[in-house]
Amino acid sequence: MDFDREHRTGLAEAVFCSGKSDTQLKAICGQLRQESRSMLFTRLAPEVFELLQSAFPDMIDYDSVSRTGFYRPRSQKDAQKETQKDKQSVAIVTGGSSDVPVAREAARTLEFYGYQSLSIDDVGVAGLWRLTERIEEIRSRQVVICIAGMDAALPTVLAGLVPGLMIGVPASAGYGMARGGETALQSMLCSCAPGLLVVNIDNGYGAACAAIRALNVQINR
Amino acid sequence: MDFDREHRTGLAEAVFCSGKSDTQLKAICGQLRQESRSMLFTRLAPEVFELLQSAFPDMIDYDSVSRTGFYRPRSQKDAQKETQKDKQSVAIVTGGSSDVPVAREAARTLEFYGYQSLSIDDVGVAGLWRLTERIEEIRSRQVVICIAGMDAALPTVLAGLVPGLMIGVPASAGYGMARGGETALQSMLCSCAPGLLVVNIDNGYGAACAAIRALNVQINR
Amino acid sequence: MDFDREHRTGLAEAVFCSGKSDTQLKAICGQLRQESRSMLFTRLAPEVFELLQSAFPDMIDYDSVSRTGFYRPRSQKDAQKETQKDKQSVAIVTGGSSDVPVAREAARTLEFYGYQSLSIDDVGVAGLWRLTERIEEIRSRQVVICIAGMDAALPTVLAGLVPGLMIGVPASAGYGMARGGETALQSMLCSCAPGLLVVNIDNGYGAACAAIRALNVQINR
Amino acid sequence: MDFDREHRTGLAEAVFCSGKSDTQLKAICGQLRQESRSMLFTRLAPEVFELLQSAFPDMIDYDSVSRTGFYRPRSQKDAQKETQKDKQSVAIVTGGSSDVPVAREAARTLEFYGYQSLSIDDVGVAGLWRLTERIEEIRSRQVVICIAGMDAALPTVLAGLVPGLMIGVPASAGYGMARGGETALQSMLCSCAPGLLVVNIDNGYGAACAAIRALNVQINR
Amino acid sequence: MDFDREHRTGLAEAVFCSGKSDTQLKAICGQLRQESRSMLFTRLAPEVFELLQSAFPDMIDYDSVSRTGFYRPRSQKDAQKETQKDKQSVAIVTGGSSDVPVAREAARTLEFYGYQSLSIDDVGVAGLWRLTERIEEIRSRQVVICIAGMDAALPTVLAGLVPGLMIGVPASAGYGMARGGETALQSMLCSCAPGLLVVNIDNGYGAACAAIRALNVQINR
Amino acid sequence: MDFDREHRTGLAEAVFCSGKSDTQLKAICGQLRQESRSMLFTRLAPEVFELLQSAFPDMIDYDSVSRTGFYRPRSQKDAQKETQKDKQSVAIVTGGSSDVPVAREAARTLEFYGYQSLSIDDVGVAGLWRLTERIEEIRSRQVVICIAGMDAALPTVLAGLVPGLMIGVPASAGYGMARGGETALQSMLCSCAPGLLVVNIDNGYGAACAAIRALNVQINR
Amino acid sequence: MDFDREHRTGLAEAVFCSGKSDTQLKAICGQLRQESRSMLFTRLAPEVFELLQSAFPDMIDYDSVSRTGFYRPRSQKDAQKETQKDKQSVAIVTGGSSDVPVAREAARTLEFYGYQSLSIDDVGVAGLWRLTERIEEIRSRQVVICIAGMDAALPTVLAGLVPGLMIGVPASAGYGMARGGETALQSMLCSCAPGLLVVNIDNGYGAACAAIRALNVQINR
Amino acid sequence: MDFDREHRTGLAEAVFCSGKSDTQLKAICGQLRQESRSMLFTRLAPEVFELLQSAFPDMIDYDSVSRTGFYRPRSQKDAQKETQKDKQSVAIVTGGSSDVPVAREAARTLEFYGYQSLSIDDVGVAGLWRLTERIEEIRSRQVVICIAGMDAALPTVLAGLVPGLMIGVPASAGYGMARGGETALQSMLCSCAPGLLVVNIDNGYGAACAAIRALNVQINR
Repeated sequence: MDFDREHRTGLAEAVFCSGKSDTQLKAICGQLRQESRSMLFTRLAPEVFELLQSAFPDMIDYDSVSRTGFYRPRSQKDAQKETQKDKQSVAIVTGGSSDVPVAREAARTLEFYGYQSLSIDDVGVAGLWRLTERIEEIRSRQVVICIAGMDAALPTVLAGLVPGLMIGVPASAGYGMARGGETALQSMLCSCAPGLLVVNIDNGYGAACAAIRALNVQINR
Repeated sequence: MDFDREHRTGLAEAVFCSGKSDTQLKAICGQLRQESRSMLFTRLAPEVFELLQSAFPDMIDYDSVSRTGFYRPRSQKDAQKETQKDKQSVAIVTGGSSDVPVAREAARTLEFYGYQSLSIDDVGVAGLWRLTERIEEIRSRQVVICIAGMDAALPTVLAGLVPGLMIGVPASAGYGMARGGETALQSMLCSCAPGLLVVNIDNGYGAACAAIRALNVQINR
Repeated sequence: MDFDREHRTGLAEAVFCSGKSDTQLKAICGQLRQESRSMLFTRLAPEVFELLQSAFPDMIDYDSVSRTGFYRPRSQKDAQKETQKDKQSVAIVTGGSSDVPVAREAARTLEFYGYQSLSIDDVGVAGLWRLTERIEEIRSRQVVICIAGMDAALPTVLAGLVPGLMIGVPASAGYGMARGGETALQSMLCSCAPGLLVVNIDNGYGAACAAIRALNVQINR
Repeated sequence: MDFDREHRTGLAEAVFCSGKSDTQLKAICGQLRQESRSMLFTRLAPEVFELLQSAFPDMIDYDSVSRTGFYRPRSQKDAQKETQKDKQSVAIVTGGSSDVPVAREAARTLEFYGYQSLSIDDVGVAGLWRLTERIEEIRSRQVVICIAGMDAALPTVLAGLVPGLMIGVPASAGYGMARGGETALQSMLCSCAPGLLVVNIDNGYGAACAAIRALNVQINR
Repeated sequence: MDFDREHRTGLAEAVFCSGKSDTQLKAICGQLRQESRSMLFTRLAPEVFELLQSAFPDMIDYDSVSRTGFYRPRSQKDAQKETQKDKQSVAIVTGGSSDVPVAREAARTLEFYGYQSLSIDDVGVAGLWRLTERIEEIRSRQVVICIAGMDAALPTVLAGLVPGLMIGVPASAGYGMARGGETALQSMLCSCAPGLLVVNIDNGYGAACAAIRALNVQINR
Repeated sequence: MDFDREHRTGLAEAVFCSGKSDTQLKAICGQLRQESRSMLFTRLAPEVFELLQSAFPDMIDYDSVSRTGFYRPRSQKDAQKETQKDKQSVAIVTGGSSDVPVAREAARTLEFYGYQSLSIDDVGVAGLWRLTERIEEIRSRQVVICIAGMDAALPTVLAGLVPGLMIGVPASAGYGMARGGETALQSMLCSCAPGLLVVNIDNGYGAACAAIRALNVQINR
Repeated sequence: MDFDREHRTGLAEAVFCSGKSDTQLKAICGQLRQESRSMLFTRLAPEVFELLQSAFPDMIDYDSVSRTGFYRPRSQKDAQKETQKDKQSVAIVTGGSSDVPVAREAARTLEFYGYQSLSIDDVGVAGLWRLTERIEEIRSRQVVICIAGMDAALPTVLAGLVPGLMIGVPASAGYGMARGGETALQSMLCSCAPGLLVVNIDNGYGAACAAIRALNVQINR
Repeated sequence: MDFDREHRTGLAEAVFCSGKSDTQLKAICGQLRQESRSMLFTRLAPEVFELLQSAFPDMIDYDSVSRTGFYRPRSQKDAQKETQKDKQSVAIVTGGSSDVPVAREAARTLEFYGYQSLSIDDVGVAGLWRLTERIEEIRSRQVVICIAGMDAALPTVLAGLVPGLMIGVPASAGYGMARGGETALQSMLCSCAPGLLVVNIDNGYGAACAAIRALNVQINR
């Protein structure tokens, strides 16, 4: 594990579980136990979480929607630093209910680093008033993470209405020409609203890391 | 030329000039003169129009934005039938100024068949109020043709607000991941608003033909 | 749920079940029961239908070919309005037997909104007389929905023969270069017959919604 | 040059001029003069033909539509053998006028090898009767070469009507989703009519070579 | 079923079983029984064959490598006509052992129509002498069907050595950039050897149908 | 023009000149003159700048590397607000000299809004020490914009070394598999370093807008 | 089997097991037993290994990470020749733990031919010091095989630091825009570091074969 | 310029001129003059070479086929070291005449570093004996660079016949499905001959650099 990364970038390494064998994941947990470290696990299947928890009781706090787990709570020192953080500086907005797992991965990553976030779901622009009813809530946040699949029209509309940092996460849900999220990704990259930033398909974790980069810098100043 | 098509489908053949040699285009004009027919020419470069007009004075009424020309006005009988038509049954809406040539190709095709249309330009949803100011005008039309490039978020928002037939035309303008209009096309096909129909990139002519199919049927009933 | 959409567009929201968890679907049914609303469910697996029906007896009328279900019949008021509708204004035409599930999704969506439709199956143009035998039946409809996979030659031939609104639905069936329906989609978008409109691959629901938009407008006039 | 190829396969090498420098083409002509050989030149620009002809008077018989030239007529021995050939065994059919240059490249290649062919142009299936009027003429040929662009629906309809060897040539003409002929190519490869064979986009030369392979074998038996 | 196709094209319809439900396949068998017809079934899983055979004893002669079955032997009249056929006019050549199922589908299709064929397997050009040892056998055939995956170099080498009709079938086997046979397909379409014809990926059936078209024509003359 | 956008989002609309006709651009300048507004012009060819400047003397300050121009300096009120801004909060880093025009477009956009930026060019990681020599300078910035083409390895290395907000801009320069910047884009989206954000190919303007969103928020708090 | 290949190229054929049936694999083993040959099996599933070993005891030495097996140890003569080989001339470097199976396939292929290799895992450049700590070890090797997925930034950095032959192997692990290793492949092909060579996705076997080609030549000189 | 690269990797940086402005290229030449260094320029247009040479007389030795130029001959020390090099250790083989410019770029790069190479042109495998006549010459080289476009069958055949290091360079020449060299690239990556290595399309320079890596290592041992 790259335990020095947090020192350099403010972001510890996380464990992307998909594609790792049980043996590899247990070895990582063993290393964490030995070094008394905390760690975020993403794309963690429920049955694998149970397997790990039975061997490592410090593997705690599984969330089945986002498929994330925490190894040990973060240290006291970290917790203290976090009290200085604006707990509600991030809004996480989704177009539809199939985007929720990605949104929760972002929320859980923020939570692991001590940030709370506001979740606003199901405000896709095919029903525009759903968004306009809640726009003031969203406008007040420093960072807006917007998860959208299919045509991904929501982040463009949002980015034309809010002043904060806008991060789009294309969602893989959909069929046919949705192409596993590639259409949503392309659409976000071609947004007519200036300053919309994009991460990989379904990468809620990466969007949260970017939000933390933006917020950390402010604290450090 | 397929002069029987109009009888069967209500739509005469048109001449898509791009890629046709001057020799081929002159041969077509010659045939039209001999048969005393009118015809719509699309993708017609200004210098080619001039060349044709100098040899065939019936080649009239060139529009440089849409790059369309008419060979002879349509016949009296056609004109009469057209008086029965609802002159304002179609709205043509664009997201930005680079979509205008495609929009005008649609408008000119409608005009050739005796339909007027309402043009509403530059109401892309990155500036949402531009659209909402004009939405009632659009809502009252039977058919809405919406030209949009880049992320093509506009037709999704529109299709969630209007009850009429919605036809999306992806525009090729843009750069990078706009991929010559493919992103806009994919985005429209994946629209979260139900019932949005799509034609080929930049195909304003085809969108107008579809609108005429919808309107013809109503007249015939 | 976006219960206001029908008021604006004449089309209620439908529930696309694929990718939604049982928990999410039950929550939707609960909401429908509470608000005494009817709803169309698409891409609904038979075992999920049974699960829902056991908890919500109003979940009725499952069709296994189209994988659609209805929650409650539509209201009296809706039914009355429907008597004004032309019950046979839509033809749904398929090229081959593997296109039938998509065709039935379109037919069921129309049925939910009170429209009957004429189904004509297996008239692919590799055996041209199968189509020519039935062309007069098709020509008399206001809207023709044509489902075709592989090379999708059928909608081009059809669109050259009928005057009504033509909607093509690419089917995902096939192998190799059929690419899950992308070849059929591209082929339809490039149709040499003017005015052919296209929806997403396998999107029978969307084609029906577009047909309803065209027909609603006529009724409203 | 691979002068032995004709002995092995019945097909001499040809010179694909596109991308070759004037220097390279002159060197080839020099070699042909020295060895007293005849040769087919394809994709030969008119100005390059003139340049070559001024230096090599044996460079004859340029056709500007197909952009082909012949270096020397083929030898007496070849000519005699050709008298045994069925002069009208191949039909070359196009969907539209933009397919004609590719069709002529096929016709000229056949001509170079001593075969005449029947050209039937502009019978695309968006106007079906144009094809049905001429289908009996086409049905009587041993080989049918069909050039079509855009949606390439024509070869599928043809292959369902004729018993001979069917060779499809996708044409690059078109715009948007025609993708330089890739949609036509994919469509032909996915044809629902069995036994349709395909060559590279715009490859009229290759289609003619395949036809010669089929016809040579019959003569040799 | 399109029972008239054989009359027009010399090729009866076949049943592509993949994606058809058991119900649909049984209905087809019922129709065949009623009309006393024979039929080729392709992409037929062994368990489905058993299911069909238990209900329809005329479903005979299953081959598990090609996954093909025959419904009833072809009629007497057909058998007689076949005695006139050159039983060994086709060679079927593969590059490697993973291409064999596709090769056998071609061989079985030929067999259904009364043609025998010569199978030569595992002569990929990465070991060139494997091919050169057998080239004379292949050269004597009227038609050569060549199945190859991955880089598909074999058909180009073959087409430079044999005079007969060359049909390439790209095979889907492979990994990574083989892209399910698309690389082999593209490679064949770009062959530097003139006159190589191509069918869809894994389409052994289509290649055989094309061979029959070529051979039928010769018989009919 | 969408003059209200700045009020909502802190970012005024800019004029993307590519694809706009001279007539359209002059109309925009006329509108700006009438409303006494300042505006950023991007993708502005030098000859078009000269044309505009001759008619509108307020069109000033053209930069030929970035192809940007300013219409009027920004207002006093804006200038005052800018004095509160951290003038050196953004670093703009390029991998090679062909990335410089994109980098300058970002720098000029920042300049138009009153931000200075630090430019560090030609530090691609194929020569790693070029980067390591300057890493401390980069680490101290709040936002790092990194332009890279080809394999785009630089932003991944950077994002593992710096704590600030990381924005990657794929550059279109390159050949072959660089695919006009798509490989660089895909590579950035798949970065193994968490929190790297991406914009469209060559979109230096968009990257700068995103940086301004991040910095504005800090000022507003 | 192509038993002559080793004589010509120094590389015996290997058995790529994926997609081969048990029957085909047993036939190969039978042939090996009869000819007393040794053979490398790749992409060999553990259950298939067990099946083969129970019938052929010479099938030995299965490695479950690389999924490779050896049939018989290589002959004495081979072993002798191998003593002349530099046992540590190859380094195999991975970016992350999901690249390890591909790396082991390369290591096992080398081992089968009598070469040892140095494995250095998990030195991806998102944590640059992990690589710099071990760079001197890598620099001393004649050949460096580098396996990397996602953005594949590692081989570019490595190729700028080491003088030996550099072979990149794109790994298929990843999600979204990783596209099964295509992004890593494109990124490597566009590397800004000169002289990086690339093989197919996940092709550890091919990379090892190339290394053996380079090393064999040296021995032979 | 990265003047330290040669020390680390044995390969100096080269100047890829395409896309660099005259100003940028002159600045590079100025730097070279000041530091008395030699340098290879690739993709250098003849008119740009003349411009540079008129200002910098040390810019010498332009080759118009490969479009390469040398700035100053390499130093004495370099020249001495080169006398130890095997002057004929590399063969550069092309399939056809359109591959020659890429082949010459490789040859010139080798020449700049003091290696001679053997060029064998026009031995594509559609005429197999052209290759077999020259195979022994090729077999004796340590490294074989093979440039091939279209279907790229040549490197597979070669790699099955020669023991040396095999480097394939896909060529962009071709039309239709050649896709600017992508088909050749994919074909090489999927080669059935083990150990074929690949570089970017048209990247003769990169292939030569890889050859130098392989040869340098041998010298250094």
